[in-house]
Amino acid sequence: MDDDQSDRLLGVGILGAAVIAKKVVRGIKVSTAPLEVVAVGSRSIEKAEAFIQETGITTEAKPYGSYQEVLDDERVDIIYMPLPSSMHLEWVKKAAAQKKHVVCEKPLARTSKEADQMIAACQKAGVQFMDGTMWMHNPRTTAMMAKLQDENVMGKLRTVISTFSALGNEEFFAKDIRVQSDLDPLGALGDLGWYCVRACLWAFDFAPPLSVTAHPGSIRNEQKVLMHVGATILFDENRRAVLNCGFDEALNQVVQVSGTTGLLRMYDFVIPREEDSAEFRVTLNPGFADGDTAVVGPTDRHSVKLDRPQESYMWETFARCVEQIKDGRSPAPSWPAMAALTQRIVSAIDESDQAGCKTIQLR
Amino acid sequence: MDDDQSDRLLGVGILGAAVIAKKVVRGIKVSTAPLEVVAVGSRSIEKAEAFIQETGITTEAKPYGSYQEVLDDERVDIIYMPLPSSMHLEWVKKAAAQKKHVVCEKPLARTSKEADQMIAACQKAGVQFMDGTMWMHNPRTTAMMAKLQDENVMGKLRTVISTFSALGNEEFFAKDIRVQSDLDPLGALGDLGWYCVRACLWAFDFAPPLSVTAHPGSIRNEQKVLMHVGATILFDENRRAVLNCGFDEALNQVVQVSGTTGLLRMYDFVIPREEDSAEFRVTLNPGFADGDTAVVGPTDRHSVKLDRPQESYMWETFARCVEQIKDGRSPAPSWPAMAALTQRIVSAIDESDQAGCKTIQLR
Repeated sequence: MDDDQSDRLLGVGILGAAVIAKKVVRGIKVSTAPLEVVAVGSRSIEKAEAFIQETGITTEAKPYGSYQEVLDDERVDIIYMPLPSSMHLEWVKKAAAQKKHVVCEKPLARTSKEADQMIAACQKAGVQFMDGTMWMHNPRTTAMMAKLQDENVMGKLRTVISTFSALGNEEFFAKDIRVQSDLDPLGALGDLGWYCVRACLWAFDFAPPLSVTAHPGSIRNEQKVLMHVGATILFDENRRAVLNCGFDEALNQVVQVSGTTGLLRMYDFVIPREEDSAEFRVTLNPGFADGDTAVVGPTDRHSVKLDRPQESYMWETFARCVEQIKDGRSPAPSWPAMAALTQRIVSAIDESDQAGCKTIQLR
Repeated sequence: MDDDQSDRLLGVGILGAAVIAKKVVRGIKVSTAPLEVVAVGSRSIEKAEAFIQETGITTEAKPYGSYQEVLDDERVDIIYMPLPSSMHLEWVKKAAAQKKHVVCEKPLARTSKEADQMIAACQKAGVQFMDGTMWMHNPRTTAMMAKLQDENVMGKLRTVISTFSALGNEEFFAKDIRVQSDLDPLGALGDLGWYCVRACLWAFDFAPPLSVTAHPGSIRNEQKVLMHVGATILFDENRRAVLNCGFDEALNQVVQVSGTTGLLRMYDFVIPREEDSAEFRVTLNPGFADGDTAVVGPTDRHSVKLDRPQESYMWETFARCVEQIKDGRSPAPSWPAMAALTQRIVSAIDESDQAGCKTIQLR
């Protein structure tokens, strides 16, 4: 029996038939991980059935007309949670209580306190927790980190500047969950800003920030949900990060990291332009020559080949964590820690903005 | 006699044998403008002689061991002023009093009040004033403005993000004029930040800003001169600009303008990588397709051909202004107005930073 159990695929149950979940189903399908989607829960069983049909899940996935039934399905090992962030705390706690591992969409929660409670619940239950920040798992990200940590390339790191914006249309502003205070109250900050904050933390290898300050000029809708915001995050050793995010301008997804001797840039950090390769650029020793009349320092374009989309790599990493837990190891602590710190900074930006751009000290 | 006068070349007198002046001499040489360098003043006549020799000025340029003698030289129509900013007010006023037209290096002055006095003196004397922001005169700048003002390309403009940084070396931090409070007290803000501020103002077609707020984390040296600073500038219609500048990281000179439908970027805005062409990039209608799995919207690389360096174009524009004044027209008001507004914003950033990142209201 035990041998049979360990040979079977890990079952994924999806809570909510969201658009993003379709991408995730595809990512699981083409991944090399021993995963299969076995359950989809929605507010109506018809919606869950339609989702299964539409995504062409070929395994025996069961549609459910409630989220609880997904948790109750014994074939489900892992919960994928694309529900609005206001529902995360309740359902992550319930999932953890039933020993389900959790991949939770961003933002984790409405507040940092809620996020910490979710993560504590998973920790207590001994299940793996990870946030769905897919770009972290792209092989490009590993290649970039090698450059960032190479002092011969970057020198000392100084500044990260990140922008993630995407223009909302009329329908979006009328009824998307990200404009509604009772669903995703962090709005553009929780959705787009999450990735920028993560990029800033990632580039500085998750050094604990000193402070967070929102920039003047944020935009909130009539429900007080952030539609645009910018912020500065300070780190020790005179390092700083600046981010801008909003639903009020054309799609733009940039990370620029400056060191004393090098620059690293990418222009499609959240969703790469291509699924079979991902690019970044490194400029080494840029400077002036000949009395400021010439600029030196070539920019090298690095390209990392991929044979599956970045979300597949995320699911492979998550499946490995779960398999190791089944082998008796503890949950990997780094994923929940990165998620919790990201939420803490995101929430601090919201707090700073609400307090008239007051600096929030974090240490 | 009058005909003879109008046929002769306009004489340029240089106050101070600075490095930047060498570039300017070259720019004048290869420009199509009716200009010749006729006088160079330095603190010692030997320095002025060496400068003339080194730059290979072939006209009968006269070396002087003082600045006043350059102003007194009747062949001088135009003063080029690369002195430290703390000396600008005195020498621009003296130049204007002797009816000399003035090209003044940036930053204009230590304070916005000083800059306004300089410009008022030129206005009163009926002479042309212009700041030495060379990139404004690059033909690329005109080509970019055509894109920025094309609603079919950019939609509504939203955000400008600009970085200008250049790493100082040991010698620079020990004795450059830009680290000394009695010479260039605005430091990196006056030197590098000037260009960023100008780019932000330029992109929004010099709309008057609403407010300026420095970001936390500025760096001042032991003389309290800014070595690094960031800031947010707000404009009406929910437009904003974010800038970062400093001597503490590798050369980087970026302007990114986001609209609702387009993005414009350039990566060498102050000193172009090439002197015979200048590039910028426009991305039209970037967005997601197919359930967020693909990014659409191609980036077009635009290249503007040049047959002389951008500083030559500046001198040609300035010479035209001077010739029109000789023909009885008034000085062109736009150049001093742009310079004064740039100084006002630069000084407001300094003020905000000194006041603990307090927002400075400008309207």
